[in-house]
Amino acid sequence: MHQQHTLDSAMRRALQLAGNGPAAGVNPRVGCVILSPVGEVIAEGWHRGAGTAHAEVDALAQLAPDAARGATAVVTLEPCNHTGRTGPCALALIDAGIGRVVYAVADPGRHSSGGADRLRAAGVDVTGGLLADEVEAFLSDWLVAARLGRPFVTLKWASSLDGRAAAADGSSRWITGPLARQDVHERRAAADAILVGTGTALADDPGLTARDRDGALLPHQPQPVVVGDRAVPAGAAVHRHPLAPWFVPGHDVAAVLATLHERGIRRVFVEGGPTLASAFVRAGLVDEFLVYLAPTLLGGDRLALGDIGVTGIAGQRRLHIDDLVRLGEDILLVARTIPTETTTDQTIPAVTASEK
Amino acid sequence: MHQQHTLDSAMRRALQLAGNGPAAGVNPRVGCVILSPVGEVIAEGWHRGAGTAHAEVDALAQLAPDAARGATAVVTLEPCNHTGRTGPCALALIDAGIGRVVYAVADPGRHSSGGADRLRAAGVDVTGGLLADEVEAFLSDWLVAARLGRPFVTLKWASSLDGRAAAADGSSRWITGPLARQDVHERRAAADAILVGTGTALADDPGLTARDRDGALLPHQPQPVVVGDRAVPAGAAVHRHPLAPWFVPGHDVAAVLATLHERGIRRVFVEGGPTLASAFVRAGLVDEFLVYLAPTLLGGDRLALGDIGVTGIAGQRRLHIDDLVRLGEDILLVARTIPTETTTDQTIPAVTASEK
Repeated sequence: MHQQHTLDSAMRRALQLAGNGPAAGVNPRVGCVILSPVGEVIAEGWHRGAGTAHAEVDALAQLAPDAARGATAVVTLEPCNHTGRTGPCALALIDAGIGRVVYAVADPGRHSSGGADRLRAAGVDVTGGLLADEVEAFLSDWLVAARLGRPFVTLKWASSLDGRAAAADGSSRWITGPLARQDVHERRAAADAILVGTGTALADDPGLTARDRDGALLPHQPQPVVVGDRAVPAGAAVHRHPLAPWFVPGHDVAAVLATLHERGIRRVFVEGGPTLASAFVRAGLVDEFLVYLAPTLLGGDRLALGDIGVTGIAGQRRLHIDDLVRLGEDILLVARTIPTETTTDQTIPAVTASEK
Repeated sequence: MHQQHTLDSAMRRALQLAGNGPAAGVNPRVGCVILSPVGEVIAEGWHRGAGTAHAEVDALAQLAPDAARGATAVVTLEPCNHTGRTGPCALALIDAGIGRVVYAVADPGRHSSGGADRLRAAGVDVTGGLLADEVEAFLSDWLVAARLGRPFVTLKWASSLDGRAAAADGSSRWITGPLARQDVHERRAAADAILVGTGTALADDPGLTARDRDGALLPHQPQPVVVGDRAVPAGAAVHRHPLAPWFVPGHDVAAVLATLHERGIRRVFVEGGPTLASAFVRAGLVDEFLVYLAPTLLGGDRLALGDIGVTGIAGQRRLHIDDLVRLGEDILLVARTIPTETTTDQTIPAVTASEK
């Protein structure tokens, strides 16, 4: 058995490798390190996106036949048990003669889980839960999507300190400064889709692209999605987005998310306006809040959030602030809903005592 | 002449001594250090509140007759030229034979200024402006009151992240947590008066006291003031405040401030509700904003700020955030109005080049 610090260090490296993968997309970012029986790193791999080799297979591919026999695979996510565009990783590890698998987080996928059991059935020593908190945090959006069967939802709004998104006459450019606006663009680029309501599409005519400081398109563009029943004219800016916009009718945000999930969207960035934002909050379908606060007061009735279905203080939607960032004169609050019950249904075996 | 570092160090000590005085009250907090001709500290003093000796006189009182002859007085505020309950400090310094006076900030008082000129006329070497920024920041509320001839106004509100002070049914206890509420109590204790509108007095029945963590009264209590025309019942909590409440009729907040200034109030803490808060913002009469943000969403129409007279984005009330503090789960933003023009009318002579 390897020393615990060897395994910890290999898992940290695997997490670092996972970060090489694309943030957006259907598949999780996974990294894998293969250790020889004496604890040397003999191969590394990571997943580069749907249709390409999984991290374990990517690492095994670097080794000569039989070189992995008796080795330990350290991988951030439980090896899959699913034949999709690639074969099951559990089988690839068994076939390569891997003696032990150490993973961080169990695979919550309906079709892909069961890899640990399959490995154990083949006589491989399997341990889960190593550095689980760090990997959970890294994969949080993908895990939420996999566990709930819907996209991870980020809701963004920008407002004055008194909660207004615009002045009384509707004028709003610019409440926040350039650093806050650039931060929005970079976060858009990590999403699979960006959503606005038809009201915002008509009133503000947003391009829904992700751009750099100079206005050039960032490498990854989110799919533009316009939600609602009003017609958006052919000359609207969203039609000039590099990806043809999707128009999803209706106002049932759960149904919208189901539609997007079916089309492979795992990370949704909801940009507004207040009607769409409030509908997501009301439905309890926001996983992450990005609240950009500008140091200004506007008064009036152009609120960033409207009716969210709270009637009394007991019904308030409590959040946990994960991060507080100053962006020039502005402030960004990154917050998450405080879950009312535990949403995770996985049980991760603890690292055995002898390894501690 | 003393070395610059000796004077800087003496001024820092004078500022520290000034901090021993009471935060609330009509008079500024001032500190004084007297240096012998060879640069030794031979006396220290500070002002303990209206009716007691000014800092310079407090320091001189520690010295034998003639011991101050040829010495340098380092004082945070220009020595006064005013005979009130105590005589003019400028005269006391001249009589003691002080050879040089170094001060930080000019006295903006209508009746008290002119001390520097009087000292110079008597042959004393006078230099102003040493560490002026630090002392300005320390005395900012008193200086605003002295320059504008009205109390310094702090406006406090607590709201959800979406700008609501209460849920739709009016329930609001507690949006913020215990650390935020305690912070409010401590800041109340630094004010001369605490203001609420009659609407809030009737709806929330606040005690308007400043209390410690255990609920005991803090040593200094702000004068409770209820603004507006509605009658507050005799059984209201405000009547149990250690100071008998003042009732100021009407809705003209400038007139309210003038009344309070006449009665010796220099620091006003406006606690709300939304009607009174909005009136102060609309009138441009807020010097400092304390915005306590709780990580929760409420929706609905119970806004912390209502109509502040802004119709378009060009009229927005821009603020500068001086401080951002996490108080448990809550956030406090301390902000100031960005002045549209320079309000200071003083000219501070620079420290002479030979001393730099």
